[in-house]
Amino acid sequence: MPAARVLVTGASGFIGRWSLPRLRASGFDVHAVSTRARALAGAPEFRGTTVHEADLLSAGGAAGLIRALRPSHLLHFAWIATPGVYADSPLNERWLDASRALLHEFLACGGARVVVAGTCAEYAPAGREPCIEDRTPLADAAGEIPSPYARCKLELQRELMRAARAAGASSAWGRVFLQFGPHEPAPRLVPSVIRRLLNGEDAPCSHGRQVRGFLHVADVGDAFAALLASRVEGAVNVGSDRSITIAGLIDAIAARIGGPGRVLRGARPAPANEPAVLVADATRLRREVGWTPSFGLDAAIEDTIDWWRAELRR
Amino acid sequence: MPAARVLVTGASGFIGRWSLPRLRASGFDVHAVSTRARALAGAPEFRGTTVHEADLLSAGGAAGLIRALRPSHLLHFAWIATPGVYADSPLNERWLDASRALLHEFLACGGARVVVAGTCAEYAPAGREPCIEDRTPLADAAGEIPSPYARCKLELQRELMRAARAAGASSAWGRVFLQFGPHEPAPRLVPSVIRRLLNGEDAPCSHGRQVRGFLHVADVGDAFAALLASRVEGAVNVGSDRSITIAGLIDAIAARIGGPGRVLRGARPAPANEPAVLVADATRLRREVGWTPSFGLDAAIEDTIDWWRAELRR
Repeated sequence: MPAARVLVTGASGFIGRWSLPRLRASGFDVHAVSTRARALAGAPEFRGTTVHEADLLSAGGAAGLIRALRPSHLLHFAWIATPGVYADSPLNERWLDASRALLHEFLACGGARVVVAGTCAEYAPAGREPCIEDRTPLADAAGEIPSPYARCKLELQRELMRAARAAGASSAWGRVFLQFGPHEPAPRLVPSVIRRLLNGEDAPCSHGRQVRGFLHVADVGDAFAALLASRVEGAVNVGSDRSITIAGLIDAIAARIGGPGRVLRGARPAPANEPAVLVADATRLRREVGWTPSFGLDAAIEDTIDWWRAELRR
Repeated sequence: MPAARVLVTGASGFIGRWSLPRLRASGFDVHAVSTRARALAGAPEFRGTTVHEADLLSAGGAAGLIRALRPSHLLHFAWIATPGVYADSPLNERWLDASRALLHEFLACGGARVVVAGTCAEYAPAGREPCIEDRTPLADAAGEIPSPYARCKLELQRELMRAARAAGASSAWGRVFLQFGPHEPAPRLVPSVIRRLLNGEDAPCSHGRQVRGFLHVADVGDAFAALLASRVEGAVNVGSDRSITIAGLIDAIAARIGGPGRVLRGARPAPANEPAVLVADATRLRREVGWTPSFGLDAAIEDTIDWWRAELRR
């Protein structure tokens, strides 16, 4: 029997790249598709992965690649993720269309199992208890108007379930919560705080009372690989039920960096409409997928600071 | 100059005993008062502490002791804490009276600094954001009817502030959140789960979606000792802004114990009127007292399981 072959989209992204090591370790023949194939040649995460250059948003997208490779497994991360822009971007519609086309081509070519990256934004923002896959109201069913991002992800999720079932294939949907780590876009919270403090500058922050659960991004990619290798069906939170206040996270970063830069709490307004508490119930991930993170929060903070220290020295 | 002398009440209790090592390390001449002085002789936490036998609830209480010792510092933990009973017990009123008498005797004898153990139950139960000392509404100021426990603690806190100020003394009030560790009363959540699983029995639990911040109890006692040695005035949360779902905590315990016993989620009703989220904002403790915990959550879990393993073998 030949090895199962997986195609990973968005493999050059913040999360996607971290799925590759476990996919290879699980015995998959790993193929990745990216618009920046050449830039990835040297990165250790991509060792042993065949990288194909293609743009899923272009006409034809990855259809040719699917027909040529005939992967048994599909792990679909690719989507617009630009900080500050992705939630309301019209590109969400284009990614929905491209993802549909990819999915149908995969199933038409005999694909057996597919896992797609969803988002905690699919949950109704009023939820303050931990979000539970089959219990917490969804953003488009609670009288709220979801963002284009949440709406398109929810639509794709429903189409995934229908289409996979109709084709006799197996599928799951990983709802991504919060993570930080190497390669995170610099404008986001954790990198911006780390970079400023490493440079000896003050770090202006919001009130910091928001409660959030974070994973190290390498654990998020790893969890997706584990989810793909499992037989679990449907939505699964890929997040941590260990949480921290934003103020506590930032103080923990600052304590490790030391130096003259201070954390200026309350110097920035908190983003509007942000939930007070955003925490995953990780029971399905832990009990059904059998996955637990390898980084604790302190280790994740240290690893991320180390990475930025090296990055800023380049 | 003679060493500062501290009197610790409730020193044989779950939290109080853990304040003693740091008090001694900080150079205090440490005196403890307990109704079970003789039983404590062998415990390592009490080494170097002079233990006096007295009942604060009896006529005269500790007045004679205060007059004999003339402590410069007072750390007052003693209160009713019986699981399932303490919140509504009429003993709360008696502890309020006894605490007042203790406090006034201490100040009348020239006491310089006093720290008393309060409770997160002083906050209004509707709070879902992290509780902040000078911002979160208090249980008796929010149109709610506080429990006798919360009401008596709030009353004592206000009297402490007034009386200490009038006497020219310094005072602080540590609001205790959640903790677990050695010597916790067996009916409480963490010991009952650990004991059942260690015995190979199933552990029936509630839905487990509650979000809570826990400290190792040794860290709580240690934080109180640090608070006493500081000059910080007023209410200070003694809790963690790192939190976890109850389900996540119990799964983490079960994963470490292994064995045949299973965690039965949903097999018990959740306690009525329990807040969905109960998390401290630990900013004052971290930044003004300069204290951070020495146990991470995983280390706290392991230490507690180890202690119960040894305890059950006796």
